[in-house]
Amino acid sequence: MTITTPDPSRLTATQALALIRSNILTVETYARSLLSRIESRDEAVRAWAYLNPDYVLEQARKLDSVQFDERGPLHGLPVGVKDVIYTRDMPTEHNSPLYKDSHVPVDAAPVAILRAAGALIFGKTTTTEFASTTNGPATYNPHDQSRTPGGSSSGSGAAVADYQIPVALGTQTGGSTIRPGSFNGIYAVKPTWGAVSREGLKVYSLELDTVGVFARGVEDLEMILGVLGVSDYAVGGGIAFGGVQNAKFGLVKTSVWPQAGPGTIAAMEKAADILRLHGAIVEELELPPEFNNMPAWHATMMATDARTSFISEYQRDKTKISKHLTGYIENKEGYTRAQYIAALDGIASLRPQIDEIAGRYAALLTPSVPDEAPVGIQEMGNAAFCSMWTALHTPVVNIPGFQSENGLPIGVSLVAPRFKDQHLLTAAKEVGKLFEEEGGWKSSL
Amino acid sequence: MTITTPDPSRLTATQALALIRSNILTVETYARSLLSRIESRDEAVRAWAYLNPDYVLEQARKLDSVQFDERGPLHGLPVGVKDVIYTRDMPTEHNSPLYKDSHVPVDAAPVAILRAAGALIFGKTTTTEFASTTNGPATYNPHDQSRTPGGSSSGSGAAVADYQIPVALGTQTGGSTIRPGSFNGIYAVKPTWGAVSREGLKVYSLELDTVGVFARGVEDLEMILGVLGVSDYAVGGGIAFGGVQNAKFGLVKTSVWPQAGPGTIAAMEKAADILRLHGAIVEELELPPEFNNMPAWHATMMATDARTSFISEYQRDKTKISKHLTGYIENKEGYTRAQYIAALDGIASLRPQIDEIAGRYAALLTPSVPDEAPVGIQEMGNAAFCSMWTALHTPVVNIPGFQSENGLPIGVSLVAPRFKDQHLLTAAKEVGKLFEEEGGWKSSL
Repeated sequence: MTITTPDPSRLTATQALALIRSNILTVETYARSLLSRIESRDEAVRAWAYLNPDYVLEQARKLDSVQFDERGPLHGLPVGVKDVIYTRDMPTEHNSPLYKDSHVPVDAAPVAILRAAGALIFGKTTTTEFASTTNGPATYNPHDQSRTPGGSSSGSGAAVADYQIPVALGTQTGGSTIRPGSFNGIYAVKPTWGAVSREGLKVYSLELDTVGVFARGVEDLEMILGVLGVSDYAVGGGIAFGGVQNAKFGLVKTSVWPQAGPGTIAAMEKAADILRLHGAIVEELELPPEFNNMPAWHATMMATDARTSFISEYQRDKTKISKHLTGYIENKEGYTRAQYIAALDGIASLRPQIDEIAGRYAALLTPSVPDEAPVGIQEMGNAAFCSMWTALHTPVVNIPGFQSENGLPIGVSLVAPRFKDQHLLTAAKEVGKLFEEEGGWKSSL
Repeated sequence: MTITTPDPSRLTATQALALIRSNILTVETYARSLLSRIESRDEAVRAWAYLNPDYVLEQARKLDSVQFDERGPLHGLPVGVKDVIYTRDMPTEHNSPLYKDSHVPVDAAPVAILRAAGALIFGKTTTTEFASTTNGPATYNPHDQSRTPGGSSSGSGAAVADYQIPVALGTQTGGSTIRPGSFNGIYAVKPTWGAVSREGLKVYSLELDTVGVFARGVEDLEMILGVLGVSDYAVGGGIAFGGVQNAKFGLVKTSVWPQAGPGTIAAMEKAADILRLHGAIVEELELPPEFNNMPAWHATMMATDARTSFISEYQRDKTKISKHLTGYIENKEGYTRAQYIAALDGIASLRPQIDEIAGRYAALLTPSVPDEAPVGIQEMGNAAFCSMWTALHTPVVNIPGFQSENGLPIGVSLVAPRFKDQHLLTAAKEVGKLFEEEGGWKSSL
């Protein structure tokens, strides 16, 4: 076997681990290739909130010294971790002056699980303040430095797209995983709510916050979710996925479709065309009218939950919290108990409905974002197309492959019923191959 | 003003804080009285997982040195913290050998909020393993050393009852706050799910775990929940509470009533009689038949969520986890995705129903426990009467005052619609006065 690329940083996680397992690639060599890529690109991307190259190499050497028969399934896999997730050996600053240099020496559950499986926890990736505002960190879109990489998992999305790391963890409360997935032209999955432990993550909204994963291939997402314990249990309901040919997809524009720009409109059309060309049935469907309440219900839930979640920071020093968040905590919008409960119960009542609807198809096809990444890094873009699925708890995967008029990446989402994550990734793998080949966009990084 | 008791440890939190505010009692004197009580009683109760008297006194002196105009609303209030809740200055061991001597130096959100308000975080109280099993810690019921204090918040319940601390934090996933409240003859509140931040608590089940508070007076619970930010928002729906006279209570036996023993049956009868005697209307009501599914749904949710929550511990060393928990993680019961989703959605669909039903009354009156605390400290008793309300997210308060044939305390619960916690405590205050005076049980501690 020969290594087809001289630079391991270009490999997907699955490819790299195969080489490590075959003793063709050492963890240290792999880590050095990533550090070298970061060194050359960090000024242009700035994806890292914390990175200690010496410590990375020390860990890599330790991993290399482990006997092959004692290695876990992710042995040597470098993983970036969004800086709202605890890591025992690195600070967690939440992009907040209140947490400058704060280091809580414990691994969040997903970090502990990946580390126990042999992952090399590489560094912390940039985030918006507490993963809760739309004001981006000083991270650039690797495809166009004048644009945002999206957020709030800004650094995770940018670093994976820029070949600085094969896999990174993010979170999503509105669109914080799927949006940067789309803006950076990579795969990103928001699993079913509750399918991955969130212990050790900053709390914004308990019912919404979800761990997300970024990678450059669906196999990588499958591997990571598998290790994190995501399982379809005894799968029941819905349609088994046996390939795109004859599969039925439900095209859902949702009530926020008027916010779709030309890039997303074109991507959705092209996505449907490609699927049809390969023998799939793509059927546009309109969700029942109750689903039109989802954007308002999601906003009510997020704002009201923030009131509970950030009391402690507000007490400590409200001048060091963004106005956006203090607005929530002071309930500037005046949400009432009745509105909040209507949102909680309204959303809960639609979860079985969307399961039933999505279960009629191989997957639902829906936009990831309104359009390409906006110009500027102050605003991370809009979560309109994501927040509904976050609140409905369904798994969502962003599939890259399309492009805007400016040549920037645009992804589309596949959605499945709750706890059908494995099924969804099986479908995403086949669909992703087609979109990457025929969608028109290729990364030039 | 004179101190009517020479021993400050006998005071409720509200009483003690009034004396501290008036400069009649120092925090150090108060702390010393509690330490002295603990010294004399610890062998008989063993409520503390961690307690460092020198450190307590050091903190107390620091609090005494703070200018009066710079003091927070809880200045000098000693608070016990269940040992599944992070405290920056003390270990958190979860009663698990996997976490022996583990010290994560960060305050869980409720601890941070109380500390910022001036509370003296006193020590860690005993818990069952991860607050998730029914095997009690080696803590005795202070009223009868041959019996369990209940759990999983065993130490919090026992310490408050035994005058070792005025207020303690617990958690509840099944009945872990209300049950020890009843077994120890004290007040205990499980607020509405989501009303208090759970950041920094061990995760067992996201949809069920709730921070709980123990005290010897309802005023104390009101004060603590107020500081924790629990608010009825713009209260809408339900009946305002203007005293027991003419108030209407709904007596709910629930589908698990056959599990009620003679102590609880008598307590419920007496509770209804006392309320009627004071001019209230007590109306027995039967919940719609869907509510009969609640025990099975709660069990399904708890077991399935545990699968996700304890993967990391299971990976580290499954031989150091109790069989009860490994059974959940390995899904010995064979719960399927369909059963889990049916439980999630079934429970969610009943939340607005119970709000509507409870909203017709000043409060619902329902059992806290099947009976008095059982003999032995291996088994903490049964959560049958609590788990429904935990899953429904309604606030619940245990009111002491009744007794079993053996002279042990038995409490009953009041329940209100979600986010009517303040309303519930207002009602509990008036009802509690009557039950304490006329219910027949008095603490002999």
